[in-house]
Amino acid sequence: MTDKPICTYTMTTLESNGLEELCQSLRCLPSVGPKSATKMVYHLLQNDRVGAKRLALALLNAIETIKHCNYCYTLTQDEVCHICQDTTRDNSQLCIVESPSDMVALERTLIYKGRYFVLMGHINPIEGQGPNQIGFTPLLEKIKSHKDSIKEIILATNFTPEGEMTAHLLAESLKFTGIRMTRLARGIPIGSELEFVDLATISHALSDRQLRL
Amino acid sequence: MTDKPICTYTMTTLESNGLEELCQSLRCLPSVGPKSATKMVYHLLQNDRVGAKRLALALLNAIETIKHCNYCYTLTQDEVCHICQDTTRDNSQLCIVESPSDMVALERTLIYKGRYFVLMGHINPIEGQGPNQIGFTPLLEKIKSHKDSIKEIILATNFTPEGEMTAHLLAESLKFTGIRMTRLARGIPIGSELEFVDLATISHALSDRQLRL
Repeated sequence: MTDKPICTYTMTTLESNGLEELCQSLRCLPSVGPKSATKMVYHLLQNDRVGAKRLALALLNAIETIKHCNYCYTLTQDEVCHICQDTTRDNSQLCIVESPSDMVALERTLIYKGRYFVLMGHINPIEGQGPNQIGFTPLLEKIKSHKDSIKEIILATNFTPEGEMTAHLLAESLKFTGIRMTRLARGIPIGSELEFVDLATISHALSDRQLRL
Repeated sequence: MTDKPICTYTMTTLESNGLEELCQSLRCLPSVGPKSATKMVYHLLQNDRVGAKRLALALLNAIETIKHCNYCYTLTQDEVCHICQDTTRDNSQLCIVESPSDMVALERTLIYKGRYFVLMGHINPIEGQGPNQIGFTPLLEKIKSHKDSIKEIILATNFTPEGEMTAHLLAESLKFTGIRMTRLARGIPIGSELEFVDLATISHALSDRQLRL
């Protein structure tokens, strides 16, 4: 992030290093450019110094305390996250997701009772995100060590180009295990009208059509 | 900012106070909702802990060191900002702007050589921003104390509803001084074609038309 240009267009003639530095360091936040960074700086220092202090302390605390769960690689304050701590869950199923939010989305369905692995990202060659930038190696280690207990691997990465790419790479690299691998079903979202659904989705829904019982 | 709802939709089942607190405190940034806050948290902790630390320290440093300029009320690390330190500037003109960025925009023209006053905001009753939330009182004090030297007050607040409201309030409250008050000219922006300029602007440009020499 540090190679981003300095937001000179607003700051130069202010010549205040503290402001410039804060403006610069806000750029580490995703989708924050020079304009919004400057806006944030003025808002914080003019209207919400308490919030700014709280943010600073929360950042320092999080950097110190938040690490990866020893089992599912998600971000957590504990050695093992609360889902992995749950002994009632089914060890024979492993669901691989991109982010903790995805895990939460699946948890909300109350259907899945197996284990998770959170990659904390996806493959994206353009942005230089390779397997090493996400939890690829710990995943392989986990699967190797639990090879006998795991009966199914559910590839639940997003249905975006990056997510599909990641799922493909996972499928290829996990082939050797011989474990059954599944992908979330592609099809028409509930409550949607066919005429407004994109072609790719409809064609997938057609080819993956289910026998009505 | 603290009365904003907790971004439960992604965090609840993560049960990690550090994450929850960081997600919450990011909400103090303007136009950051629960979704983007969560995205920021995962990005920082997964990909840019160095940047996160830098941001935290920059925030703490700014809160400590950045204060208002004794003369123009802008944010600065020094007692008096570098523009107010410039003794060559014309004390007879005072230009009132909303933000330091506006001051920079005017400075770039290299035309104005007078003094500035930065309100650090604008009046906005809907958002509860009254005269006391911006540098209204220090402005009045400044003008009272420099009443004899100031010959013209240029109202350079933005041409938004809030900016116009602020300019109007300023004009009303500064009437008693008897100092000449001007507002930046409204008209057709340079390089634009009439057919694409909005009606209000054209009608202002018409009524404020200038005698061609």
